[in-house]
Amino acid sequence: MAYTVGIVGAAGYAGVELARILLGHPDFELRAITSNADAGQALGSVYPAFAGVEGAGDLVFSTHDDPVLTTCDAVFLAVPHTAALAAAPGLLDAGVTVIDLSADYRLSDPGTYERWYGVSHTSPELLQDRAFGLPELFAEDLDRAAERHAAGAPALVACAGCFPTATSLAAAPAVRMGWVAEGGPVVVDAISGVTGAGKSANARTHYCSADENVEAYNVCRHRHTPEIEQILGLDGRVVFTPHLAPLKRGLLSTVTLPLAPSAASLTAEEAVSAYRSFYEGRPFVRVLDAGQVPKTSSVAGSNACQIGLAVNHEASALIAIGAIDNLCKGAAGQAVQCANIVFGLDERRGLPLVALPV
Amino acid sequence: MAYTVGIVGAAGYAGVELARILLGHPDFELRAITSNADAGQALGSVYPAFAGVEGAGDLVFSTHDDPVLTTCDAVFLAVPHTAALAAAPGLLDAGVTVIDLSADYRLSDPGTYERWYGVSHTSPELLQDRAFGLPELFAEDLDRAAERHAAGAPALVACAGCFPTATSLAAAPAVRMGWVAEGGPVVVDAISGVTGAGKSANARTHYCSADENVEAYNVCRHRHTPEIEQILGLDGRVVFTPHLAPLKRGLLSTVTLPLAPSAASLTAEEAVSAYRSFYEGRPFVRVLDAGQVPKTSSVAGSNACQIGLAVNHEASALIAIGAIDNLCKGAAGQAVQCANIVFGLDERRGLPLVALPV
Amino acid sequence: MAYTVGIVGAAGYAGVELARILLGHPDFELRAITSNADAGQALGSVYPAFAGVEGAGDLVFSTHDDPVLTTCDAVFLAVPHTAALAAAPGLLDAGVTVIDLSADYRLSDPGTYERWYGVSHTSPELLQDRAFGLPELFAEDLDRAAERHAAGAPALVACAGCFPTATSLAAAPAVRMGWVAEGGPVVVDAISGVTGAGKSANARTHYCSADENVEAYNVCRHRHTPEIEQILGLDGRVVFTPHLAPLKRGLLSTVTLPLAPSAASLTAEEAVSAYRSFYEGRPFVRVLDAGQVPKTSSVAGSNACQIGLAVNHEASALIAIGAIDNLCKGAAGQAVQCANIVFGLDERRGLPLVALPV
Amino acid sequence: MAYTVGIVGAAGYAGVELARILLGHPDFELRAITSNADAGQALGSVYPAFAGVEGAGDLVFSTHDDPVLTTCDAVFLAVPHTAALAAAPGLLDAGVTVIDLSADYRLSDPGTYERWYGVSHTSPELLQDRAFGLPELFAEDLDRAAERHAAGAPALVACAGCFPTATSLAAAPAVRMGWVAEGGPVVVDAISGVTGAGKSANARTHYCSADENVEAYNVCRHRHTPEIEQILGLDGRVVFTPHLAPLKRGLLSTVTLPLAPSAASLTAEEAVSAYRSFYEGRPFVRVLDAGQVPKTSSVAGSNACQIGLAVNHEASALIAIGAIDNLCKGAAGQAVQCANIVFGLDERRGLPLVALPV
Repeated sequence: MAYTVGIVGAAGYAGVELARILLGHPDFELRAITSNADAGQALGSVYPAFAGVEGAGDLVFSTHDDPVLTTCDAVFLAVPHTAALAAAPGLLDAGVTVIDLSADYRLSDPGTYERWYGVSHTSPELLQDRAFGLPELFAEDLDRAAERHAAGAPALVACAGCFPTATSLAAAPAVRMGWVAEGGPVVVDAISGVTGAGKSANARTHYCSADENVEAYNVCRHRHTPEIEQILGLDGRVVFTPHLAPLKRGLLSTVTLPLAPSAASLTAEEAVSAYRSFYEGRPFVRVLDAGQVPKTSSVAGSNACQIGLAVNHEASALIAIGAIDNLCKGAAGQAVQCANIVFGLDERRGLPLVALPV
Repeated sequence: MAYTVGIVGAAGYAGVELARILLGHPDFELRAITSNADAGQALGSVYPAFAGVEGAGDLVFSTHDDPVLTTCDAVFLAVPHTAALAAAPGLLDAGVTVIDLSADYRLSDPGTYERWYGVSHTSPELLQDRAFGLPELFAEDLDRAAERHAAGAPALVACAGCFPTATSLAAAPAVRMGWVAEGGPVVVDAISGVTGAGKSANARTHYCSADENVEAYNVCRHRHTPEIEQILGLDGRVVFTPHLAPLKRGLLSTVTLPLAPSAASLTAEEAVSAYRSFYEGRPFVRVLDAGQVPKTSSVAGSNACQIGLAVNHEASALIAIGAIDNLCKGAAGQAVQCANIVFGLDERRGLPLVALPV
Repeated sequence: MAYTVGIVGAAGYAGVELARILLGHPDFELRAITSNADAGQALGSVYPAFAGVEGAGDLVFSTHDDPVLTTCDAVFLAVPHTAALAAAPGLLDAGVTVIDLSADYRLSDPGTYERWYGVSHTSPELLQDRAFGLPELFAEDLDRAAERHAAGAPALVACAGCFPTATSLAAAPAVRMGWVAEGGPVVVDAISGVTGAGKSANARTHYCSADENVEAYNVCRHRHTPEIEQILGLDGRVVFTPHLAPLKRGLLSTVTLPLAPSAASLTAEEAVSAYRSFYEGRPFVRVLDAGQVPKTSSVAGSNACQIGLAVNHEASALIAIGAIDNLCKGAAGQAVQCANIVFGLDERRGLPLVALPV
Repeated sequence: MAYTVGIVGAAGYAGVELARILLGHPDFELRAITSNADAGQALGSVYPAFAGVEGAGDLVFSTHDDPVLTTCDAVFLAVPHTAALAAAPGLLDAGVTVIDLSADYRLSDPGTYERWYGVSHTSPELLQDRAFGLPELFAEDLDRAAERHAAGAPALVACAGCFPTATSLAAAPAVRMGWVAEGGPVVVDAISGVTGAGKSANARTHYCSADENVEAYNVCRHRHTPEIEQILGLDGRVVFTPHLAPLKRGLLSTVTLPLAPSAASLTAEEAVSAYRSFYEGRPFVRVLDAGQVPKTSSVAGSNACQIGLAVNHEASALIAIGAIDNLCKGAAGQAVQCANIVFGLDERRGLPLVALPV
């Protein structure tokens, strides 16, 4: 039996990645793809990979107010922040489960949201019961959402952002196991491919700007900072510097964590072993052997996350590195993974497990 | 029910692409992957995309003489030329169907083979009954192989090369419909990504040589020339110049065909319409609207071929452009497509239909 | 002694390449850089390579009507077509020599201009005396312009386009030496880097569209077609298909010329030798040994053109390949080379002779 | 008057960049280029950018024992570590000034050298008087070397490594001004282009491995770690994680420094202002305005270093980012800059000040 789903904002990069996955998903039937900018155009003409593909190329974008959305079992919101504030309450009222890829319902504290995003939160009452969409670290949240859904009530899932996903999957086990020293900066230097900058054509996304270049951006003011701090429980300690590199898909987060005195003699092998126990049974997270490093090309196009670990004993620090595909595990894939769980399906259902080997 | 298969040469780029496809194929069970150079190593350590993937990462390369091969229903040969000459006869004798990705059984005339490859053909008697593996143009060949296979006899399929596949899919309908003038050069200028140069690390495949560079190579002496001429029936007329461009996967072939007087008034729209009839029912070939151009990024990772057509009336020429993924439709995907047909399955079975949209 | 110069359209890619070259030129003093869109901004803030560079970073863009322009010895027009029609007559009237990088004065026949560019030519009377700016093939034109300039009269130089430059340098010697058969298409398949698509940020120049992709564009309708035909004297015979590849700078043109019966036995070595005589004394053109191929990375950033030659005797065709940097020899570098000649300087003056080796 | 120079190891990437610069240098005459692997070959055939270039393409590589070397005024050693140990003493004995690009004479303490490089130092007596080749931070060293050279004695310059150069130019002013807290890790996350991995063709430098990929490497064990600690005086505190990104030239180092209580209220603007005073009169270092970020594409091909600064007050950290071209300011350009100083020339002499703007 297929559940019906829709995508609001399907013409953006995360949205079309959702379309790719949902069109091949055995349990979801894609009923509506919306884009105010591209309404009336066919999917195959906006994204030529779908041109001429039976059952996909001819799908036509409708506008965000498409009435079909309220008839779906679930709707994915692949929209900028504030647009989810506008759409989610109505869908939930109509009984539709909402899988939100935007930042609107991620931060538990509406005050933090307002400080970092510069706008008021218009439905803070929804924050309490929303599930945080990062299944490997917030399993209970999603289990509660699944129960709710099974009981006939719509659920709201706030999927984690791309940088917080890679960063937290790499750092959370260390934090939760008490390895991290109290006080002092936790440094997150991350590198993203250009799809992370979105579909908008501008001076920064021009091929001739991005090619053969690496640069930092939004230094000390990237909005994923409070989200990382919230997930890891490291308020005011995260120094997050994102970088842009010349590739399409891929995100690598290198996290340097000062070790607590009690963890001063931790070896990389012990860290790997503890991480593997932590992530046991989670098919998308792959903790590499000590001495191995994650590569973004090893996960691109898939929902996988690779994690590598090393210890610097002289400086007493753990280096935890996470690699994901920012559009898949960092956005669309994770959203479908969450939806699978909410609908009671195997979390792998319909999701690409392996990247192209070359 | 699953058929058992093996891959000889599974550590090369076409071989590992075969592994990727076959590991996800619902009707084939991958029993052996061989590589003399990497024997004893795990797939996941040679290609880290498979690291930690259940049922894949731990597969271990055996040597080319692995006895498991002769117990398989089919073996794919992803080896350089002459290595297939060495392997195919024995496998066929053992009753194993052989899907050969090398050049060894492509050319009908062993003399042509010997002239272009500089070695003697050691099993010319197999050429007569081999099927030419380009399903959209040689359907009868594969139907015969399927009958043979159904009757319990092993089949030999000689899959088309990457440049011949894109070039012929773009040009063959025009030739078969009699649009091409007699005499004069038919110019094939094609561009390939660097996976086309293979896994060997050398001065040409070094990142710092290939990046930010385009160049021609093997001008007037690329071995795919006689294969293109054979498929199209254009002996001695093809001027084939392959080029290398800085991308991983993707092959674009631009074919300029002089129009016969009888086709002088052909329009692009008429050409598109005739091509669509020609390829009706072939799910992987997508003929674009007049005015549209194929993109390699629209087919990369999939088994699709996009074709674009334009007419230059002043110079009386048809420009036919084909785009494929050289490792998929140009190698491993086409091989599996052929195997599907030989085993009586839907030709799409287990094959990626759509590229990543971004 | 320094001549004073200005650049109209200095914020585009060809314009800023002119700025780079002229700022380092020992005989030209850059007095004005104009850009209506960026007027008031500093060069170093629009192009951060100049940020903080003494004597360059603080140069401020003025508008196209900057009165300083009419006081210069020469003005370079790096503007789209029709904008040069608007600017050149006034500058010439003011006694300023004009080096035009646009297409406006390239085509000798205003009717051809109007047919391909869709606008009327408003100063066809200037076409007769303009010099065609491709020094290696139109030396007399530039000598006449130099005489004119020496005599105190302003000169107008219409610099060749990027594709015509690479194509004609590769093909013209063969045509002029009578090697090319009469009748039949002359096929020009060329590949350009993305700087060739200009500074405008749009769906095609977005990194995520251009990266890992090759495609043809403007098939059968690229406006450089009549320019190539004019230079080579091959009216109605050129089938020109430009392609876009994922690199910043670089243009490779592969020209396939049918050989005349009298040239049927030409060898590549003979062709190389004849080409070397043809280009003797021209420091920017480098004819490679037979068997060698030009690389765009070997000329990027420099004003050089590499040429490679091969002969296909079976199909009776010469393959002539030219590689240039589209922004340098294909635009700004060639413009400065022309200006050097017009001002009586060594043509190499101030121009980069060698690309980065890696 | 020209000084005579030679390059040992001229066929590697740093060596050929030296050749490029020295061939265009007005005060140095390149007498010998050596390469044991390519001895007998012409520069233009190994690096086709030089093919056909007058006075360069025909230069022939000799072996490392070329007797011409001992007749030069200075010799540049662009060799792997230990090879400089083998070559420098003899050259110095012959009265030749040595500009060493290897790591052999960088570390002041031979014990540290032996611990990190795994070999004994065979001429520790030379360490005391060698100048450390990072002119903006070790001006006195180079002044002393210049005096020595002016007095007729040969000098030994140990040029800084690529990561230490970018990292130290970004971090040293903060350290020297006392802004950095005592204790706790100083995190250096740096990104290098693939030229940093050298000319050797291997699995890591293969285009199809490096393209569309970012990864860390040599985590916690990169040999530039002790060099950074020595320059900055931060023994045992540097956590250095280098990353590889898909570009040819360029190195970006992001340094996160915990602020001392006395510097807790430092603003980015104050930091910029202090840095500009620190680097006053140094033409290659460009400290960007607060809010601006350095780009590797803004320095590639030039000897420039761009520095960007930001302050995270909540976590009390300074983020200092440096961008250089790893082959130029990170290797060959810096070596020539040092040689200029030692020979009493303007440090800019013969060096590229500005990157290609696009």
